[in-house]
Amino acid sequence: MEWINESRVLIVGLGLIGGSYAKALKRIGYNVYAIDKDPNSIDYAIKNEIIDDGSTEADPELISTADVIILALYPKDVCAWILNNQHLFKPGIRITDVTGVKSCIVDDVQNILRADAEFIAAHPMAGRELSGVQNSDDTIFKDANYIVVATDKNTEAAVEWCKRLGRILGFRRVSVLSPKEHDRVIAFVSQLTHCIAVSLMTCTDNEHLVEYTGDSFRDLTRIARINENMWSELFFANKESLLKEMDLFINEFCRIKELIEQDDAEGLKEKMRLSTARRALFDKKKN
Amino acid sequence: MEWINESRVLIVGLGLIGGSYAKALKRIGYNVYAIDKDPNSIDYAIKNEIIDDGSTEADPELISTADVIILALYPKDVCAWILNNQHLFKPGIRITDVTGVKSCIVDDVQNILRADAEFIAAHPMAGRELSGVQNSDDTIFKDANYIVVATDKNTEAAVEWCKRLGRILGFRRVSVLSPKEHDRVIAFVSQLTHCIAVSLMTCTDNEHLVEYTGDSFRDLTRIARINENMWSELFFANKESLLKEMDLFINEFCRIKELIEQDDAEGLKEKMRLSTARRALFDKKKN
Repeated sequence: MEWINESRVLIVGLGLIGGSYAKALKRIGYNVYAIDKDPNSIDYAIKNEIIDDGSTEADPELISTADVIILALYPKDVCAWILNNQHLFKPGIRITDVTGVKSCIVDDVQNILRADAEFIAAHPMAGRELSGVQNSDDTIFKDANYIVVATDKNTEAAVEWCKRLGRILGFRRVSVLSPKEHDRVIAFVSQLTHCIAVSLMTCTDNEHLVEYTGDSFRDLTRIARINENMWSELFFANKESLLKEMDLFINEFCRIKELIEQDDAEGLKEKMRLSTARRALFDKKKN
Repeated sequence: MEWINESRVLIVGLGLIGGSYAKALKRIGYNVYAIDKDPNSIDYAIKNEIIDDGSTEADPELISTADVIILALYPKDVCAWILNNQHLFKPGIRITDVTGVKSCIVDDVQNILRADAEFIAAHPMAGRELSGVQNSDDTIFKDANYIVVATDKNTEAAVEWCKRLGRILGFRRVSVLSPKEHDRVIAFVSQLTHCIAVSLMTCTDNEHLVEYTGDSFRDLTRIARINENMWSELFFANKESLLKEMDLFINEFCRIKELIEQDDAEGLKEKMRLSTARRALFDKKKN
């Protein structure tokens, strides 16, 4: 069994992901505390033994006794929270996060952070079409990927520690990327796909279509139930990469449209063969 | 228990769907026969008791004794098969199909068909990313939709019969559309989504991306493993409708891109709220 030595974990932001972290860590035996401005979330989590204790305020006691802080906040709140509270941090503390964009956060945080603390970013690529600690579920990590996002400022020890955290949480695959690499990859595999799903649901008044759909439409639009505050923030925070990937996709989609317009059966089949081969490899790698 | 009275069912084309029909009907107690040019498919199906008997030829005995014929062929082969074999049909026979496009088939078939036979088209909206009778599985019908595609030439009795067949096969929802309506709906919910999935896999060399994907990319590309012969035929057979739906989608996708470019957070959130509301309704209707 892998382990991280620190025993008091403080989770800031007890939503779906924060709550799922709490469940996973508490189950293994860590002492887990949480700060969330919603009293219902804290009450629920204490009553259901998801956390040991919690507060709706930036409680100095909870912050100053934490060995590890996990920031499960919206991207724009990460830096501010650290600025406001780092005077309370235990020396040598390790801080990580769960946000879906990195370039816009990591440098800023590492620039303002106390010299005796270390911030090592991570992106747990798991979620549900529901929010809140009440819907948290650490089994969503089981088949999912966890990306440690490291910079030159990170120590080898912190990178290793963060990888260990990912494995402890139960993620299937843990990898390491730079903030730039992370944001480019995420723009493609996550943000672009959400733009597609939303477009499919909004391009036509298709409410009645449920009667005529196969699995394909259902699969492609599952993620169209979307938290608009979080996702719009993620899109704008990664605007440049996302727009680039959207263009890449549009070009290819229009190329396929052209092949159909021109009755180019061989060209279309060639695309389908490539798509099939790549997706098959994908399935294979998964297993 | 609903029932169709005819007891000898002949399935022409014993692939994934033909085989799944055979399994469902055999289980209920029908005598099921099949014609398929591939001897391995026929042998496999007989050995595994998926059919009672079969042939690799248009066997006059099998055809002339059938009470019902189900054509599980590629669209372009449907008309030719009927033309070549209808002299053998039992008077009063009912014929249905499983093809994914209808306008290009139904009129032609109904025009050439013997006056004492009736063709009533149907589209079982189920499938797998595998082909062949060896992969057939009638549980794929359980959560799926079945569309009866009727014209003015069809009798009320045949429409009712075909709806009953859909329910007997185990489909969750059975509905009736005209060929034109069917093809427009299918262009959107099925063909467009396959174009998107293929584009996502071919727009960039993304083989390594499996390490960094969440469920969203996996969901959106599941159907990118595609039978290029069947799907290119379906696309071209429904070209006009498909191109229209592709344009509709591109326009909306570009509109969302514009909102991001222009930092229009409120406009983007509005799209996401609409998408969420529609998809939620969709989930609700499903259950």
